[in-house]
Amino acid sequence: MVDINSFGVLGGDKRQIALAESIAADGYTVYVYGFDNIEFSKDVKKANLEEIILRCENIILPLPVTADGKHLNMVYSENSIELNDSFAELMRNKQVYGGMMGKLYQTSDVWDSIDTNDYYTREEFAVHNAVPAAEGAIEIAMREYPGTVNQSRCLVVGYGRIGKILASMLRGIGANVTVSARKYSDIAWIESYGYSSALTDKVCDKEQYDVIFNTAPALIFNRRLLSKMHNRPLIIDLSSPPGGVDYEAAQKFGIKAIHALSLPGKVAPKTAGEIIKNTIYNMMEE
Amino acid sequence: MVDINSFGVLGGDKRQIALAESIAADGYTVYVYGFDNIEFSKDVKKANLEEIILRCENIILPLPVTADGKHLNMVYSENSIELNDSFAELMRNKQVYGGMMGKLYQTSDVWDSIDTNDYYTREEFAVHNAVPAAEGAIEIAMREYPGTVNQSRCLVVGYGRIGKILASMLRGIGANVTVSARKYSDIAWIESYGYSSALTDKVCDKEQYDVIFNTAPALIFNRRLLSKMHNRPLIIDLSSPPGGVDYEAAQKFGIKAIHALSLPGKVAPKTAGEIIKNTIYNMMEE
Amino acid sequence: MVDINSFGVLGGDKRQIALAESIAADGYTVYVYGFDNIEFSKDVKKANLEEIILRCENIILPLPVTADGKHLNMVYSENSIELNDSFAELMRNKQVYGGMMGKLYQTSDVWDSIDTNDYYTREEFAVHNAVPAAEGAIEIAMREYPGTVNQSRCLVVGYGRIGKILASMLRGIGANVTVSARKYSDIAWIESYGYSSALTDKVCDKEQYDVIFNTAPALIFNRRLLSKMHNRPLIIDLSSPPGGVDYEAAQKFGIKAIHALSLPGKVAPKTAGEIIKNTIYNMMEE
Amino acid sequence: MVDINSFGVLGGDKRQIALAESIAADGYTVYVYGFDNIEFSKDVKKANLEEIILRCENIILPLPVTADGKHLNMVYSENSIELNDSFAELMRNKQVYGGMMGKLYQTSDVWDSIDTNDYYTREEFAVHNAVPAAEGAIEIAMREYPGTVNQSRCLVVGYGRIGKILASMLRGIGANVTVSARKYSDIAWIESYGYSSALTDKVCDKEQYDVIFNTAPALIFNRRLLSKMHNRPLIIDLSSPPGGVDYEAAQKFGIKAIHALSLPGKVAPKTAGEIIKNTIYNMMEE
Repeated sequence: MVDINSFGVLGGDKRQIALAESIAADGYTVYVYGFDNIEFSKDVKKANLEEIILRCENIILPLPVTADGKHLNMVYSENSIELNDSFAELMRNKQVYGGMMGKLYQTSDVWDSIDTNDYYTREEFAVHNAVPAAEGAIEIAMREYPGTVNQSRCLVVGYGRIGKILASMLRGIGANVTVSARKYSDIAWIESYGYSSALTDKVCDKEQYDVIFNTAPALIFNRRLLSKMHNRPLIIDLSSPPGGVDYEAAQKFGIKAIHALSLPGKVAPKTAGEIIKNTIYNMMEE
Repeated sequence: MVDINSFGVLGGDKRQIALAESIAADGYTVYVYGFDNIEFSKDVKKANLEEIILRCENIILPLPVTADGKHLNMVYSENSIELNDSFAELMRNKQVYGGMMGKLYQTSDVWDSIDTNDYYTREEFAVHNAVPAAEGAIEIAMREYPGTVNQSRCLVVGYGRIGKILASMLRGIGANVTVSARKYSDIAWIESYGYSSALTDKVCDKEQYDVIFNTAPALIFNRRLLSKMHNRPLIIDLSSPPGGVDYEAAQKFGIKAIHALSLPGKVAPKTAGEIIKNTIYNMMEE
Repeated sequence: MVDINSFGVLGGDKRQIALAESIAADGYTVYVYGFDNIEFSKDVKKANLEEIILRCENIILPLPVTADGKHLNMVYSENSIELNDSFAELMRNKQVYGGMMGKLYQTSDVWDSIDTNDYYTREEFAVHNAVPAAEGAIEIAMREYPGTVNQSRCLVVGYGRIGKILASMLRGIGANVTVSARKYSDIAWIESYGYSSALTDKVCDKEQYDVIFNTAPALIFNRRLLSKMHNRPLIIDLSSPPGGVDYEAAQKFGIKAIHALSLPGKVAPKTAGEIIKNTIYNMMEE
Repeated sequence: MVDINSFGVLGGDKRQIALAESIAADGYTVYVYGFDNIEFSKDVKKANLEEIILRCENIILPLPVTADGKHLNMVYSENSIELNDSFAELMRNKQVYGGMMGKLYQTSDVWDSIDTNDYYTREEFAVHNAVPAAEGAIEIAMREYPGTVNQSRCLVVGYGRIGKILASMLRGIGANVTVSARKYSDIAWIESYGYSSALTDKVCDKEQYDVIFNTAPALIFNRRLLSKMHNRPLIIDLSSPPGGVDYEAAQKFGIKAIHALSLPGKVAPKTAGEIIKNTIYNMMEE
C-alpha cells in the first residue's frame, strides 16, 4: 500500500545518498533505486522501481533529473531508466520532486497531468547552496594560494548570493576583503557591512589583490585587465561556463586561474543533500 | 555668476549642517541659508536666498522638504520660507535635490518644469541609513537593558535592510541572535549567515528573549503574544507609526517597549548628512 | 539552624541586588540586609544581621567591601554597619566572600582566623568584567560621537583584557579598528586577529582617528600628542585614576575626553552581579 | 667586503625560499646557498658558502637548523654542510639567526663565542604561526568533512595560541563553536568572546560534535571517550607527537582521526617565511 510518509529516491549522486539518509533520520520510510554498490544505514531500503511505485507517495528525482535528455541521471548504477511515456505513467498520482525538470517534460506529454515540483528553481535552494559553493571556493584558495588567506587581499567580484556569503566568510577568517558590484545600492550594502567597495568596471585599475573570486556571469577578466595584474593573483572563477576569465591570456601572463564548477555537490555532498531535503519539505508544507 | 560647482543648502536640521560641511570639505563652494546661530567652518558661507540663487547651480532642500506642506523645513532659523509659485520660480534652471518631495510639488505647478531629484527615494540612501538606525537601536538596548547585550538573547523581527544590519552588529558584539522572517528564502539567508531562525508567525511561541527589536511594519506584538512573555523582555520597536507593539498591553504586563523613530538624524547626524551627500553625488554622476 | 545552602548578602549596590536574585533563581535560599526600599522577588528574604548570621553558611560582602575603611559599603540603607572586632566575630565559621578585602582586614585581627575569599582578585572575574566595561565604552562612543561607530576609525590603546574585548566588539559593529601595544608578541596577536596594529609609543604619529579608547594605565595622551590631533577625536579613557589623558590640555585643544570609570556596575548591574555570583560558585567548587 | 645590509640564507625548505625573496623585496641584498634547482627572482643571488661568508653580515639558518644533529637541514641541494668546528668558525663575527638551535650548539664549542639568535623561541613567532596552523586545520576539515564547516558543530580542545585563532576563524565561517579549557580564567575568555564553553575533562560527556580539533598536548581522546562518540566525528589532531588521540581505538570505532603536523610550512610556506623574516627584523631592532 502507498504510504504518504514514504519517499522513493530514484537515481542521482552523493547528494541523493545523503538526502535519503537524512530523510530516514527524520523518521520517514525511504526506498532507493539506482545505488548498486552503495551501503546505506538500515533505515534506507533498496528496492526496485516497481516496489517504489507501489509503496511511495513521494518520488524524488535527481539534480539534474537527466543529463542526456533520454535517461535518468543515475551515476551509481549499471542499470538505466529510460525517460518516456511509460516512466511518466508510473508517476501518475505521485508527488514528484526533481531538479532542473525542463528536459524531463520534453520526454512525454503525460507529465502535463502530473504534480511535479522543481526544487532547483526555489529561491531558498539557491540561497542555501551559496554556502557550500563559497566554502568550496575558500578551500581551493587555501590549497592553491601559497600564503594564508588570513591577511591576504581578496577581491570578490559580484555581490549576489555567493558573493555575499563568500565575503562574509573571507572576512571571518581574517582576509582584507574588497567586493565589487555594478549598482550603487549594492555598493551601499557592501560598505554598510564594512567591506571595501569597488565598481566592477574599475576593478584592479589601481589596487592589486592576492586572491580574486569571480562570481559575475560575464567576461570580466579579459586580456586587458589581466595584463595589469603584475603581482599575478590567484583567480578562482565561480561563474557558469564559459566563465569570467580569458583563460588563454591568463596562462600567457602566468596567472593561475581555476574554473570551479558544481562545488556544492563536490565539496559538501552531505550538506547539499540536506538542502534538497529541506527545500522539498518546504514545498510539501505550502 | 552661477558656478556649476556651487551648492546652496536651504534649511533643515543637523544633517544638513553636516552635509554642508562635508561638501565644503570636498572642495566645493557651499552657501547656506536657514541656520541663524549655527557656526560653520570658514568654507561654508552664510548667505541670503537671493545670493544663493544667484550663485549656485545645485540647490539642496532638507529631509523632509516640508513638514506642514506650506513652509520649508527650517528648524534653525527664526525666518521662514513659504512654498509657493515664486519660490518654485527661483529654482528654474537649477538642479534641485530634496528628500520626500511629494508635498512640495503640490505647492506650485511650476515644479513640473524644474529638474528635481528626490534623494529619499534612492535605494542606496535607504540602505546606508539602515546603519545609523541599527546603531541607534543598539545604543538604546545598551542603555536600557540592565545586563550586557553581549551574551543576551536577542530577537530581530524582520530581515529587511535594518534587520540585516542589526543582526550583523548584534552578533558582532557577542549576542545570541535569532532573526525571524516570513519567507523561506529569507529564512535561508538567515541560516546561511549563521543566525538562529524563526518564522515571524511563530515567534516567541516557545523561546524567550532578553531584547527584541521589531523592524516589521505590522502589529506583531499584540496582547496575546505579549501575554506569553513571562521574562519581560525589553522591546525596541523600529517600525513606522503606529508601530508593531500594543503599547497599552505592554505597559499592563510590565514590559518596557520603546518606539524608536528617526534614529539616523538623532544619533548620527554627521553620518546621516554624509549619506545624503553621497546619494546626491551618485545622482549627479548618472 | 545554619543551612549550608543559604547565602546572606550584606550591603552593596545594584550588583548585589542582581546577585541575590540570581542566586535565588538557582534554587538557593537567600537573605539580604542593607536594601531598605528595594523590592525583591519572593525568593529573596529581607532579614536583619542576626538572622542572617543564624541561618547562613555563606556570607557575601559587597564590592568594594568598604569605601571609608570603617563601615560596610551599603548604599541602599539608612543604617550602617561598623567594621570592628564584633562584626568580624559574627563571621567566625562562615564562608565569607567579598571584593577588595584589604581594608577590611585592617579593621580587626579576628579576620586572621576566618575563611575569607576575595572574588575581586580572581582572574575569571577580571576577564568577565571586561565585557560590560567594553560595552559601556561603546555605548558612550555611540552617544557622544556624532557619526556612526560603524565605519569610523577607532584606536584602542592597550591589548589587555578590556582592549581585547573592545577591539572584537568594535570590529563586530563595522568600525575600522587599530590596536596599539608595546610588546611584539601583542602586536603579533593584534595582526593575527586581523586588526591594524601600532606601537603605543608611535600612536597618532601619522594616522588620525575618530574615536580613541585608552585602556593603558599611563599618561599616553599628553600635551604633545594631543597637539597633533587636528581632527579632534573623541577620547574615552578607561584607565584608573589619574587616567591616561592630560584633560586640561585636551580641553584647551577642543578635544572631548571622557574619563569613564566603574562601567560594569553602572551600565550592566545585572551582568556584573552574575559575574560575582559565578566567581563565588567557582571558588566554592575548588 | 662585508655588507651589513646583506643577508645570507643557508639551506632550508620552501619557507626559506619565501624568506629570501621577501627580504630581497624589502631592498636588501640576499645571497642563498642550498637551493640547486630553485629559480629565484633576480634580486636573490645564488652563491657558494665562501662568497656568502665574505659578503654577508647576517646569516640565516633554517628551521630546524639540523634534523640529524650532524648536517645542516638542506632539502633542496645534493650537497651537504657538515656541522663542526670549521663551520662554526665561519660564523665568527656574524649575526646568526636560526630556528631550534639546541642541537647546533652541541656540534662545536666555538658557538659559545658567536652571536646567535633563535627565532623559534620568540613569542611573536609562535603567535604568528598559529594563523597558518589554524588555516591548515580548517582546510583539512573542509576537504575531509562531507558537510560544510558552516553550521557544523565544531569543538576546539584547548585555548592556547592555535585554539584562539582556530575558534575565531571557525566562527567566522559560520560554524557553531564550542571551546574547551581546563582553567576557569580561560573559560571566562571563551564565554566573553561568545563561544560555547566546556571543561576539557567533561568534553563530549553529553554533547556530540561534527568536527573536533585537538590542540591540547595530552591524550584527551582515549578509548573511553572515543567509545561515546556515536556520530563518528572527524578528529583533527594538532598536538605534537605522540598526539592527543588513541588512533588505534579511533580506527576500531570507525572514527576518522588525522594527525596534522607542521602545517605552517606545508600549507602556507610564503606566510611562514615572512613570519621568520619579521621575527628576525624584530630581533635586529632590539
